[in-house]
This record gives sequence, C-alpha cells and structure tokens, in this order.
Amino acid sequence: MRTTTGWQAVGGELRRAPLERRALRPDDLAIRVDYCGVCHTDLHAIRSADAPLVPGHEFTGVVTETGPEVTGFAIGDPVAVGNIVDSCGACAMCLAGQENFCHEFPTLTYGGTDRHDGSTTLGAYSREYVVRDRFAYPLPRGLDPAGAAPLLCAGITVWEPLRALGAGPGSRVAVAGLGGLGHLAVKFAVALGAETTVISRSADKAADARLLGAHDLIVSTGAEGMAGAREKFDVVIDTISAPHDLGPYLRLVAMDGTLSHLGHLGPVTVNTLDLLVGRKKLSSAGSGGRPATAAMLAFCAAHGITADVEVLPSARVTGALERLDRGDVHHRFVLDLSDLD
Amino acid sequence: MRTTTGWQAVGGELRRAPLERRALRPDDLAIRVDYCGVCHTDLHAIRSADAPLVPGHEFTGVVTETGPEVTGFAIGDPVAVGNIVDSCGACAMCLAGQENFCHEFPTLTYGGTDRHDGSTTLGAYSREYVVRDRFAYPLPRGLDPAGAAPLLCAGITVWEPLRALGAGPGSRVAVAGLGGLGHLAVKFAVALGAETTVISRSADKAADARLLGAHDLIVSTGAEGMAGAREKFDVVIDTISAPHDLGPYLRLVAMDGTLSHLGHLGPVTVNTLDLLVGRKKLSSAGSGGRPATAAMLAFCAAHGITADVEVLPSARVTGALERLDRGDVHHRFVLDLSDLD
Repeated sequence: MRTTTGWQAVGGELRRAPLERRALRPDDLAIRVDYCGVCHTDLHAIRSADAPLVPGHEFTGVVTETGPEVTGFAIGDPVAVGNIVDSCGACAMCLAGQENFCHEFPTLTYGGTDRHDGSTTLGAYSREYVVRDRFAYPLPRGLDPAGAAPLLCAGITVWEPLRALGAGPGSRVAVAGLGGLGHLAVKFAVALGAETTVISRSADKAADARLLGAHDLIVSTGAEGMAGAREKFDVVIDTISAPHDLGPYLRLVAMDGTLSHLGHLGPVTVNTLDLLVGRKKLSSAGSGGRPATAAMLAFCAAHGITADVEVLPSARVTGALERLDRGDVHHRFVLDLSDLD
Repeated sequence: MRTTTGWQAVGGELRRAPLERRALRPDDLAIRVDYCGVCHTDLHAIRSADAPLVPGHEFTGVVTETGPEVTGFAIGDPVAVGNIVDSCGACAMCLAGQENFCHEFPTLTYGGTDRHDGSTTLGAYSREYVVRDRFAYPLPRGLDPAGAAPLLCAGITVWEPLRALGAGPGSRVAVAGLGGLGHLAVKFAVALGAETTVISRSADKAADARLLGAHDLIVSTGAEGMAGAREKFDVVIDTISAPHDLGPYLRLVAMDGTLSHLGHLGPVTVNTLDLLVGRKKLSSAGSGGRPATAAMLAFCAAHGITADVEVLPSARVTGALERLDRGDVHHRFVLDLSDLD
C-alpha cells in the first residue's frame, strides 16, 4: 500500500485525512493530483454518504510512477482522469468504446468497487491517485491543467450528446443553464459551428453568454421570449440540475429534434403531447467512453477550450461546496491539491 | 344544410340519429361513407363526452358531390379521410406538410371546431361526411376499402415514426402490442425491409406475428427473453394503450436508438438512467401530415398492405366497442355504414 492525504467526508463534513492507495499493479499509473474539479455529484455524494467517502472525479496531474506493463505513459507526463477508472472490457458497450455504459457497470472513480480487490474507490480530493492506464488520458500540451480538469466529467457529459445529436454547421443548439456543464456545452457547440443560444433565468447572463461565444440569450422566465423561440432548436441541452418542468424546454425543440436532459438522475415526467407534437425526442447522457474522451481533449486542444474555473486551495473545499450549492460559481470550482503536501 | 344518418353518443350510449352536414363550400367534397374503423380514441371519446358526439375518424367511401372549386376529385372517386379535416395552412408546420402539428391546432374529424362556422365536427360513424378536398386522399385502386380505412389513423400514426426513425434494410425494429396500430407497424416495418420482432404478453401470438411477416417474437412477461433482447433494437414502437412501465421497453433499445411510445396521451414517467445508459431517446407520434399520408397510401398500394379487419354492420358498433375494450379484436373493427341507408 501507499499513503497519501485527502479530504474525506464523514457525516457530511470534509476532513483532511491520511488515505491508502493500492500498490501499483502492472498496468497502473500513480498520479500526483494537481487539480480536481468540484462537481454537483460530489455535493450529493457527501450529503448522502453513510460511510466515509473521498469525492473528486475530474482531475489533472502528473505521472509519478508506472507499473511494469505500462507503455503509453512515462514519469512526468501530464494526464487527466474522469469519473470512470475501469470497466469489464468485454461487453458490447466496452467493445464499442462506450465504457461508460459497460453492461457490468463501470468502476466509478470514487464510491465504486474495484474489480480486482473489491475495495471502495477513493476520489481525487487527494494528492495522489492510482489508476489503470487505460482510463488515464494524456493531457494535450497547451491546455491549462486547472481549466482542463472539468473537461473530464462536465465536458465529456455535454460533448457526447452534442456529437451524437449532430451539433455543427447548420444546426441550432440551445443550452439551458450556464453552470459547469452548460458553459462547456456553449463553448463546444460554438466551436462545432452550431448557431448557439443560451437559455437562462436571468437576462444578467447575456454578457456572460456572449463571452462564451453564444449568439443569443433567451430568458426562460419571460413568456414572450420562450414563445418566440418555439420549435427553433434542433438540439436543446438542458443542464439544469434542480427538478423542473421539461415542457417549456420541449416546446423549444424543432420538428424531429431532441431535448437532452443532463445532470439529473431519477424519474422525470413528460407529457406525451409535448413529445408527440413535432415528433420530438427526449434523451439523456452522462460521462463518456474512452474514444470520445480522447477526441474531446484533442478538440479542446485544437480550439483552445478549457472550463472557466475559480481555483481554490483544497483546504477551502467546504466553502466551495456551499457556494456551489447556492449557484455562486463561475463556472466551475477547481481545487488546487498542492496544499496537501 | 344536408341531412344524413349516424351513430351519436349520448351519455356513453350510441344511438342512431339524423345528423346535419354543412352545405358544400367551394372546396368541399361530399362523401358517401362506406367503411369506418373503430379506434381506441373513439372509446375514450364516447365515455368522456359531456355533449352529444359522433365518433369515427378513419374512413373510406365514394365522392358523391363536389364543390365548384374542386379539381382533384370527381363524383364516383374512391377516397379516404383520416383524423384531420383542416388546418391553418400558413404556419411552419403546415408549410412543412405536417398539418397534424399545425400551430393553430388542426381541425379534428370529430369533436373539432370548424374553422369557418365554428360548429363542432361530427365523425364518420355516419353515412355521409363533408370534407375540405385537401384533407381527402384518393384511395389507390386495388386496396380493399374496408381494410384501407384503418390506414388513415392507425396506419399513418405508425408510418410517420417508422419513417422518421429510419426503419429499413439493416435496421432492427421491435413492435410491442399487436392491436390496430401494432399489426400495421409490423406490416410496414417488414415491407420497409427492417428486421422486425413482435413483443407480446403471450407466446400465443407467435403464429399471428409470423403471418404478419415478423421475424421473431419475444414474450414480454418472460424475463429471459427480454434480458436476451437487451439493446437489440434501433427502434422500438410501443403501441400498448394501457399505462405501463416504459423501463423494460427502453432496455430493448440499442445505443442511440429510440423508443416511440404511441397511442397514449398524458404524462409518462421515465427513469433518466434508462435513457442515459446507451444514450437512448424517447419519442411519440400521432396522426400524420398530408404528404406522408399520401406516401403511405402509395406504399400500401405498392406492397398490397391493408389492415386486418373484422367488418361489422354499423348497427353492431356497441358490441364492437365492448370487444375492443377487452382486447378481443383481430386486429381492427371496421363498421360497414351501408346499413344506415
């Protein structure tokens, strides 16, 4: 075993604690974690955990050690890891490069069960992470490692549906919500060449939306703007994490278009008529497979895309979570783990 | 005004009654109704009607008179009419040939409000119907007029999603339910070249499914068959009209595929995870536009497709509705209106 230091949630509180990492297997990397994004999932996990838990599943760092069978990475390489650290590798989904949909369920970066020793995985609010090489990605040169960390969860979660739904030149994309997921969805849609509109509760976000490259903003609380945008979008990416009525967003979807509802797990109710009129589709997405993650990172490098982040020393994680909970974030918190040394 | 005879629902009971039809407008046709299908919608409408109502919205007959501006039809022409008899003609949906999604709401064949005189439309459980020429379709020669009647509602309702979702050679289609909609969905999917599977509560339907051309049948109550069919279909057409859990049907949908849930109006609840895992889509559909309806009729003529029907004298309509309600129909009842003469 190896020891490191991290932030462990016990009874809803995060405390600095020593953590154990496994000794490297032949195909493992040890990574010094430099930056880890703070995801909404972390907030839910900390609050609902009934056992000690270390959050953190979108991070960047540097390889510090490699197992004897690792050929794709060397000590000193900058790398990135997302919310999946293993999968069966043999099912149809894994063979199709959609390890996120592994039929045997992928191993989650934290709170998952390791496929070899049965231990519970500990996340990257921590100075070191040990990961199977297949689930680490070379971080392209030129991408700021702090801003790149959120690409590995928030980024890939919006990238996959945008690509699957054909966002690109000639398509009209709307993005509801400008949080971690939403602001990256806007950057991606714009860079993919789609005509991109932000839907926000507040007109105050107009300048922000423009800075992200959006062509327009519609205020969701304004009946007129929403009515005027009826059936205007081929793809609506809904990143609003709180429960809400999907009807108003479905009505923005054009004939044969799709509402992709992200960042929410659990039951959602839709009125059949909202789907029927215009033959619209409701979909969801989350995380991504290895090929898509690598493609997204290459795209980000080519287009200079990283998340807009507020970087905080990891000791300030509790304050970051509190601010995230009340929506006071622009657009993603990233923890700098160097204060754990 | 013109007078005819029909079956009018009052307090949930159908009674033979004299009915008034409007005098022909310049672009109207008078049609002698020969055959009218009995749709599930009729059952709901009769039961929930708080005012006298004449059901019937999928029918075939013969033109008996034409308004002075009618050029596309002549007396004696066999014609078919579906569940829409008018629309605004000016909105984006109408201009796109999707009159069924008219922004001003299409005029329904019964229980709708006429756009000119504000009267309530009376359906085709009646010996005569007067309709605007644009919403009548020439019935192709060679199609049995009794078997063709259900094409105009049940048929087009399954045709549109099958076409929109790309059912054809190389695609795998499953159809849940073998009622009026389902059996036509199977015939269409097979004729379109898709590998077609029926999903039924009962293995007894296997012979029936084969006769319809299906390549396979899965028993929905059998855990093994359903598990074995996981993610096997690009398109699942769910025609089950009773409320039911969509989860088992979503699990049959392949990566990036679609569950099209038909024949039910109102709220449906899905678990986001059932959509997320495999990036699946939920859609709905109903009725169709004029171009698609004409295309479907041409396809049916080319492939010799009509509904499998049990034709009854219209005086036996109450018995037909009772049998429909308990699922005792193979696969659609059609009323022969000649007994109203």
